[in-house]
Amino acid sequence: MLSKSKLKYIQSLGQKKHRDDERLFIAEGPKIVAELLQDVPELVSEVFALPSWIEGRADQPVSYAVTEVSTDELARISQLQTPNQVLAVFRQFPASPIPSMKGTVALALDTIQDPGNLGTIIRIADWFGISQIICSQDCADQYNPKVVQSTMGSIGRVQVHYTDLPAWLASQKDARVYAAALEGQDIAQMKKLNEGIIIIGNESKGISPAVMEKVNVRITILRKGKAESLNAAVATGIIVSHLV
Amino acid sequence: MLSKSKLKYIQSLGQKKHRDDERLFIAEGPKIVAELLQDVPELVSEVFALPSWIEGRADQPVSYAVTEVSTDELARISQLQTPNQVLAVFRQFPASPIPSMKGTVALALDTIQDPGNLGTIIRIADWFGISQIICSQDCADQYNPKVVQSTMGSIGRVQVHYTDLPAWLASQKDARVYAAALEGQDIAQMKKLNEGIIIIGNESKGISPAVMEKVNVRITILRKGKAESLNAAVATGIIVSHLV
Repeated sequence: MLSKSKLKYIQSLGQKKHRDDERLFIAEGPKIVAELLQDVPELVSEVFALPSWIEGRADQPVSYAVTEVSTDELARISQLQTPNQVLAVFRQFPASPIPSMKGTVALALDTIQDPGNLGTIIRIADWFGISQIICSQDCADQYNPKVVQSTMGSIGRVQVHYTDLPAWLASQKDARVYAAALEGQDIAQMKKLNEGIIIIGNESKGISPAVMEKVNVRITILRKGKAESLNAAVATGIIVSHLV
Repeated sequence: MLSKSKLKYIQSLGQKKHRDDERLFIAEGPKIVAELLQDVPELVSEVFALPSWIEGRADQPVSYAVTEVSTDELARISQLQTPNQVLAVFRQFPASPIPSMKGTVALALDTIQDPGNLGTIIRIADWFGISQIICSQDCADQYNPKVVQSTMGSIGRVQVHYTDLPAWLASQKDARVYAAALEGQDIAQMKKLNEGIIIIGNESKGISPAVMEKVNVRITILRKGKAESLNAAVATGIIVSHLV
């Protein structure tokens, strides 16, 4: 049974301001919640679940508060159109400085604003073993419920940093910086990268001038048909699959 | 000025049953509407637009009925969260038999149910010059407004067919059939295809047994990290970029 104040409190975590004030975020559905409980068990705060979910995990150790809720209550706290058995509240990841990029390939996102795209890009990074994503300040919030859901659980395994992107790129003096653009070197003809920073630009405007100034190599996905562009997450997947 | 009955009529096109009864679909926003007006001008039925859109196209020949609407009226007929200047009603593409696959690479979609994924896959096909997509009957509807919007205009340039997929594959006796799977030949090591059918499976269940029976070669995107899977549209983009 959920109190009215608890219900309001959980609902409020759908908004960035409240999430950041409380330093919390929510994740939903058995798959994503199970992955986060496994990858970052120390960050779980509270779990709200249908009896079926609770019974299904009866053999697992429980180190967190679980509140049994009805289907109706779950629908009221859920951010999903189709609520799915369980909603968990997690503490946000501890802030950590951006590590050195020496010997690694990192993704940098310049104003990726669609939450679905950001989540999908985090999932792509996780698939290809990229552990660091550097976002400009105006990218979508990694704790936005739509981002969390579209990572499909990868959010606990990829570090996402928010920073002044042109300034950070300027500080990476030895790094080679690659930018996805409509014209540039064909990625299908390039060698795999051992290290470097790959920049993906905004869904409609591409890469901003201040960021483009720091770019060493423009790269492109050769077009054979007539579409004007590719979805930003799809382009990221294609580029990473060729270069990493 | 929109009559009440017109308003209801346009709203009803958000539903598949009404779209198919009327053999119509809607497209929204200046970019997508402009591309469809250019690619399939013979299919436009009616256009509803803000004065700004009408003025912006004052120098273009107009062969269709344009109704000027207010921002408020547009919001009421729009399927978008943020209505965008213009909504156009188009006739559905004329039915045409699936052409021979000889000498071409085609995509076949087995139960791709998310409209955003289907639209994004149509856009990918258009980028890479794939002109035919064969869908199982239970794929999302190509005329679903979310599909149309996520094609970003590519829907007028790629033919999408709905058919009994296992039966159609069985009829393609000479074709090589490739299926995206979690285990198979690494696409990064394969040669480009000159012809063949590439099957993409359902978002959570993958390829159905009846379709898998018709497959000659399983292909895969090598995983280096820990994500369990990739988004279906991202996987399609990666596979097509390597093989086509």
